[in-house]
Amino acid sequence: MERRWNGWGMLNGEYQHSPSPQAVTMAEERLGAAEALTVAELDEVLAKLPASRLESHPLLSFDSEIRVRHSRGQSLPDLFALRSGELGAVPDAVAFPETEEQIQDILTLAQSCNAIVIPYGGGTSVVGHINPPKSDKPVITLSLAKFKELYHLDRESQIATLGAGLAGPELEKLLNAEGYTLGHFPQSWELSTVGGWVASRSSGQQSLRYGRIEKMFAGGTMVTPKGTLDIPTFPGTSAGTDLREVVLGSEGRMGVISKVKMHVTPLAEVENFYGVFFPSWEQGKALSKTLAQQMLPLSMMRLSNAEETASHLKLGGDPKAIAYLEKYLGWRGVAEGKVMFTFGTTGDKKSCRFALKQVKRLSREFGGVYIGKLIGKAWEHSRFRSPYLRDGFMDLGYAIDTMETAVDWSKTDEAMEAIESSIRTAAESFGEKVHVFTHLSHFYPQGSSVYTTYMYRAGSDYDEAYQRWLALKQAGAKAIVSVAGTISHQHGVGEDHKEYLPAEKGELGIATIQSLCEHFDPEKIMNPGKLVD
Amino acid sequence: MERRWNGWGMLNGEYQHSPSPQAVTMAEERLGAAEALTVAELDEVLAKLPASRLESHPLLSFDSEIRVRHSRGQSLPDLFALRSGELGAVPDAVAFPETEEQIQDILTLAQSCNAIVIPYGGGTSVVGHINPPKSDKPVITLSLAKFKELYHLDRESQIATLGAGLAGPELEKLLNAEGYTLGHFPQSWELSTVGGWVASRSSGQQSLRYGRIEKMFAGGTMVTPKGTLDIPTFPGTSAGTDLREVVLGSEGRMGVISKVKMHVTPLAEVENFYGVFFPSWEQGKALSKTLAQQMLPLSMMRLSNAEETASHLKLGGDPKAIAYLEKYLGWRGVAEGKVMFTFGTTGDKKSCRFALKQVKRLSREFGGVYIGKLIGKAWEHSRFRSPYLRDGFMDLGYAIDTMETAVDWSKTDEAMEAIESSIRTAAESFGEKVHVFTHLSHFYPQGSSVYTTYMYRAGSDYDEAYQRWLALKQAGAKAIVSVAGTISHQHGVGEDHKEYLPAEKGELGIATIQSLCEHFDPEKIMNPGKLVD
Repeated sequence: MERRWNGWGMLNGEYQHSPSPQAVTMAEERLGAAEALTVAELDEVLAKLPASRLESHPLLSFDSEIRVRHSRGQSLPDLFALRSGELGAVPDAVAFPETEEQIQDILTLAQSCNAIVIPYGGGTSVVGHINPPKSDKPVITLSLAKFKELYHLDRESQIATLGAGLAGPELEKLLNAEGYTLGHFPQSWELSTVGGWVASRSSGQQSLRYGRIEKMFAGGTMVTPKGTLDIPTFPGTSAGTDLREVVLGSEGRMGVISKVKMHVTPLAEVENFYGVFFPSWEQGKALSKTLAQQMLPLSMMRLSNAEETASHLKLGGDPKAIAYLEKYLGWRGVAEGKVMFTFGTTGDKKSCRFALKQVKRLSREFGGVYIGKLIGKAWEHSRFRSPYLRDGFMDLGYAIDTMETAVDWSKTDEAMEAIESSIRTAAESFGEKVHVFTHLSHFYPQGSSVYTTYMYRAGSDYDEAYQRWLALKQAGAKAIVSVAGTISHQHGVGEDHKEYLPAEKGELGIATIQSLCEHFDPEKIMNPGKLVD
Repeated sequence: MERRWNGWGMLNGEYQHSPSPQAVTMAEERLGAAEALTVAELDEVLAKLPASRLESHPLLSFDSEIRVRHSRGQSLPDLFALRSGELGAVPDAVAFPETEEQIQDILTLAQSCNAIVIPYGGGTSVVGHINPPKSDKPVITLSLAKFKELYHLDRESQIATLGAGLAGPELEKLLNAEGYTLGHFPQSWELSTVGGWVASRSSGQQSLRYGRIEKMFAGGTMVTPKGTLDIPTFPGTSAGTDLREVVLGSEGRMGVISKVKMHVTPLAEVENFYGVFFPSWEQGKALSKTLAQQMLPLSMMRLSNAEETASHLKLGGDPKAIAYLEKYLGWRGVAEGKVMFTFGTTGDKKSCRFALKQVKRLSREFGGVYIGKLIGKAWEHSRFRSPYLRDGFMDLGYAIDTMETAVDWSKTDEAMEAIESSIRTAAESFGEKVHVFTHLSHFYPQGSSVYTTYMYRAGSDYDEAYQRWLALKQAGAKAIVSVAGTISHQHGVGEDHKEYLPAEKGELGIATIQSLCEHFDPEKIMNPGKLVD
C-alpha cells in the first residue's frame, strides 16, 4: 500500500475517505453548501521544487519526491499547503541513517555545513513539528525509517527495545507475535512512530489502562550534538533528575531519539467496548469522574457532549438502527440533550467482569441507560477513521480541525464552554457558521482532556481557508489560556502552540527548556524554532 | 513531645527504642557480645560549637542548639557524629522564612555575603543531603518549618496545596479532617516533610496504590536564585518538558521548594494487611511478580527473604504465638527456608474484596499458605518503628544500616545475592560477622526495589564504627553498580551516593543535571557538593 502524498493514510486502505450521504446533508444544513477547492498534482509540485542547497553526500537523498513527502506534517494548514501545492520551505535533503554512528555523522555534517536537522518519525504532527523553517540555512530532514527493529524483549521484566522509527501497526505486529502489546493507540496510530510519540509526549486512546507514553517509556537512546544519552531501565529510582523526562517532549530540539525501551503488556485475555447514554452532560460527567477517581480498572472512556452525540448518531452507521436506538432511549427517558459515554475493559476475564459490573451499577445510580456493545463496537471499528474523513470533507470544500487541552475537574465545563463559544464567535466575525462539538477522552483522578472538533466552509481559495483556520485556532487557543488549561494534552507544541507556551511554563520555565536545548545543542542545529525560541 | 537531638524520633513517643530480649540474644548469637559506646551530652557539644561566620540579620538565627539540631541528617555516620559529639561542619545560621519573599531575600543575602544555602525539611536524609560541607563559605540552613499550612483543597480535582515544611503526621491530620489522605508513608513519615519527599524523589510504603511521590506531585513553587518557578496543575500535558520533573530529585541544588500541590485521595472505606507464607523464595517471588504485572488493586506488598523472615519471626511479638504459627506452617509443609509475604488492600469494600480474593487464589496456585491478618497487623503496628530500634541497638553497641536499589525482574535475584554477599565479604575483611537480610517492598510490572538491612558490631570507638560502615557501604554500593541497579530507589543521592551516580546517568547525563543546576544557580550557592559536583 502506498501512502497518500497530500493527505492522510494509505491509498486503498481499509478506511474510506467519503463521508456518508447523511453526513454531507448535515454539513450542508449546518454550514451551507460548499465548493471543492482545486487539488494540485504531484508532478506540478515536483516541477517547481527549488534546488537543494546542500552538496552531494552518501548519507543524503536529494530525490524530489522524497523531499516533498517529508516537507509537511498533517495539520490543517499542512493539508492546505499540500493540496494547493504551495509547500513553502522544503528540506534540502533527507537522510535515512541506519545506525547511531550515522546519525552522529549527520549531526556533525550539519554542523560543518551550517545546516539544521529535523528529526522525522511518521510525519503526522498536527502542530508543525517537522516543517522546515524559512531559513538561510539548508535543512536536512533526518528520517528514522531505517530504525524498525524489535531489538530485544525482556519477557520477565516486560521491556521491549524498539527502533524509534516503528509505526503503530509495525510495532504491534512484532510485539503481538511474541504475545505482547504496547497498548498505545493515538488516532494517528497507523502512521505515527514510537520515537515521535516520545518526542511529543503522546497519549493513546487506551491511556486509562496503559498510561500516557511517559509511563511506557522506560529508557532508550538519544543521539545529540553533544554525544549520546543512554538511559538504562529501572522500575523506580530516586537518583536525582529522571533523564527520561528530558527526552520526553523534547520535540527534536535536543537530539534524535533512535531506540526506545518500552513497557509492554501480555496480550489481554479479553477486550470489549460498551456504551451508556445519559439524559444530561452533568450526569455523564459525574459518572466518568467517579470512575476515574475510584481508579476502576477500565482501559478507555469517552464522554461526548450533546452536540457530538447528535452528530455521531447522524454520521454513524445504519440510520434505521440509530432511529430504533433513539426510540428505545426516549422510552427510557433519555432524549433531547442526551450524551453518549463509551468505555472499554481490557485484561483478564475476572478483572474485566468485575469492572463491567461496577460501571453498570454506577451508571444506573447516575441515571444512565446501558446499551451493551452496540456503540462500543462502532467506536472500535472507526477509531482511526477521523483523519480519513477530514480528507473526504475537504474534497467537498469543508475543513475540519480540532482543539484539545486538559484541565482539572473543577474547570472542565468552563474550558469546554470557553473553547466552543470562542470558536463560534470567531466564525461569526468572518460571517460563517461553524459546527462545533466536544468530548472528554482521557481521564485522570485530577481531571480530563477536553477535545473539541470544529468544521467550517473552507472558502473560495486556500488562502481564505487558512485565514479562517487561523482566526478559529487563535480564538480556541486563547480560550484555553484564559481558563489556564494546557495548550496541548496530546499533540505537543511544535510551531503552532509555541506562542501560548509561556502562559503555562512562565518566563523561568521557558528559560529552563531553552537552557536544556542549549546544553545538548550549543550550535542550534536541532529543529530550531519549534517548542521554544 | 520533644524531638531527640542525637537520634531518631520523639522522646516519650509511641515507639520504644529497646529491642526485645529475644532480639538482643539473636544479635549476640549472630555477631558476638558488644559494648556500648559513650554518648556525648548536648551541653558538651554546644560548648565547643564554633562561632558563626555570618553577621547578624533579622532572618537568621544563631542560637547554638538550633544550629546543632540542623547540622546532620539521620544516616548511620550522622548518628555516629551526633552520638560522639564530633559534628564536623555545622550551619553558621539557620533561617526560618515565613514567605516566599523571605526565601528570596535569604538567597539574595547568601549571594551578597558569599554564603551557601541548604534547604532543610525534616532533616531525615540518610545520604547526607542536608549536611553542611567543610567549606570556606559560611552556611545558611534554610528551614521550611514555617511552611505548614493546607493552603487550599480542590475537592473536585482532588488537589491539595500544602506547605513544603509539613511533616507526615501534620499533613495527614490536616487532610484527614477534610476526609482525604495523601497516602505517602515512607519509614521516615513521622519526621520527614512533603517538600523533602519531592526534593529527594521519595517512595512510601503504599506506593502500589498511591504511587511514588512523582505521581502525587501535581505542581507547586520553587524559589530559585534566578526567580520563582510556579508550576500549574494539569491532569496530563504534552506541552514540552514537564517542569515538575526538574523540581523532583533536585535535592536543594536548584532552589527551595516552598509549596506543593499534591494529588490527594478520599479516605478509604477499608484498609487491611494480610500475610502469606511460601515454602521458598522462588514461589514468593513468582506470586509477587504476578500480582504486580496483573495490576491488581493492592496498596502494598512486601516479600522478605528467608533470613529476614526468620529474623522478623524472632524479633516480633509473643514467642509463644510465633511458635504456634511456625508449627502450623510446618504442618502445611512450609518450614526451613520459608518466606513471608505481606500485602494490603485499601479502597472501597468491593474492590478490596475482589483484590483479596484474587491474591488468595493466586497464592494457593503458587504454593502459599494464607494466614489472615496476624502478620499484617504486626507490620502495620511497627511500620515506622525500625529507626527507633536502630537507636536501641546502638545503645548496646550494634550498628544497623540499609542498602537499597531497584532492578528489573530479570535481575532481582542477582542483585539481592550480589549485595548480601558483598557485604558479608567486606565484614570478613575486617574480621567481623554481619547479619544481613533483604526484602522486596516496592513492586512494579517491570521489577521491584531490593532493600537489604545489615547489622554489625560497632567496634571500640566511633571511628572504627565509621570505618566498618564505610567498608560495608562501599561494598554494597559497588555490588549495586555491578548489577546495573540504581544507586537508590527511595533515599536519593546526596553525598553518600554521588560517586556512584555516573554509572547510571553516564557522562552526558551528569553534565545535563549539572547544566540544570547552573541554569537556576549560576553563583553555586545552592547546596553545593550534593547530587552532582
